[in-house]
Amino acid sequence: MRACEMAEEYPVVDLDSDALAAARLLAERRLPGLVVTDGSGCPQSVLPASQVVRFLVPRYVCDDPSLAGVLTESMADRAADKLAGKTVRSVLSGEPTELPRVNADDTIVEVAAVMARLRCPLVAVMQEGTLIGVVSASRLLELALSPR
Amino acid sequence: MRACEMAEEYPVVDLDSDALAAARLLAERRLPGLVVTDGSGCPQSVLPASQVVRFLVPRYVCDDPSLAGVLTESMADRAADKLAGKTVRSVLSGEPTELPRVNADDTIVEVAAVMARLRCPLVAVMQEGTLIGVVSASRLLELALSPR
Repeated sequence: MRACEMAEEYPVVDLDSDALAAARLLAERRLPGLVVTDGSGCPQSVLPASQVVRFLVPRYVCDDPSLAGVLTESMADRAADKLAGKTVRSVLSGEPTELPRVNADDTIVEVAAVMARLRCPLVAVMQEGTLIGVVSASRLLELALSPR
Repeated sequence: MRACEMAEEYPVVDLDSDALAAARLLAERRLPGLVVTDGSGCPQSVLPASQVVRFLVPRYVCDDPSLAGVLTESMADRAADKLAGKTVRSVLSGEPTELPRVNADDTIVEVAAVMARLRCPLVAVMQEGTLIGVVSASRLLELALSPR
């Protein structure tokens, strides 16, 4: 089995797209993360839902969660306030999460090896410079464990 | 809103349960990970699907994915072979992934702060020493972004 046969569609957002829309997509589809592409559609990174959550919490509260009690504003106020007008790029900045790429004709063992080595739950499948889909760790297990 | 109102059910496996059954659960439900509990039902860790994938790939292939081509056996043979008779504990050993805990009466801001500080996509909600559910990062975004 080749990577192109394993690949599945996955929500993609552009680096310069709206961060609030990306957060809503994560929330509505209950996804752990989104694939982030550059202007040419080439995958650059993953935007994990936990990174967006980080963005909603003031730094002093991240450092000491017991201070969360002093926040009187609601999370909804904060979410709209902090994400409005921002890009996905700015939410990612600092710590972009790597999205490894494999080739469409790589075998299932090659895909598993990349995933295993980089400890990542998602890889992008590329064909002639174009993203054709992703393979998640659970998809790989599904294929590895299915009867031949 | 309190953590107990945010918590959702999530698949849980015991440290001493069968690793192959856990892998099948990840595959069938297409989950990024499972919550792992000890004998008393207390959450200890998360078993990420990518950790199970790592277990299926020989170390020399992890170190150099180009060697994946020399493997002639199928992933299905390897999966059954490597996981049969193993426990979840043995697959986790080496690098357990932390599962932070929050209290049932913690607020949404406190839960977000823990998630943000530890950069984790999942927290366990505890009430009197018992796991009552989990909150994922995407669930938290859903609640933070929903109209009041």
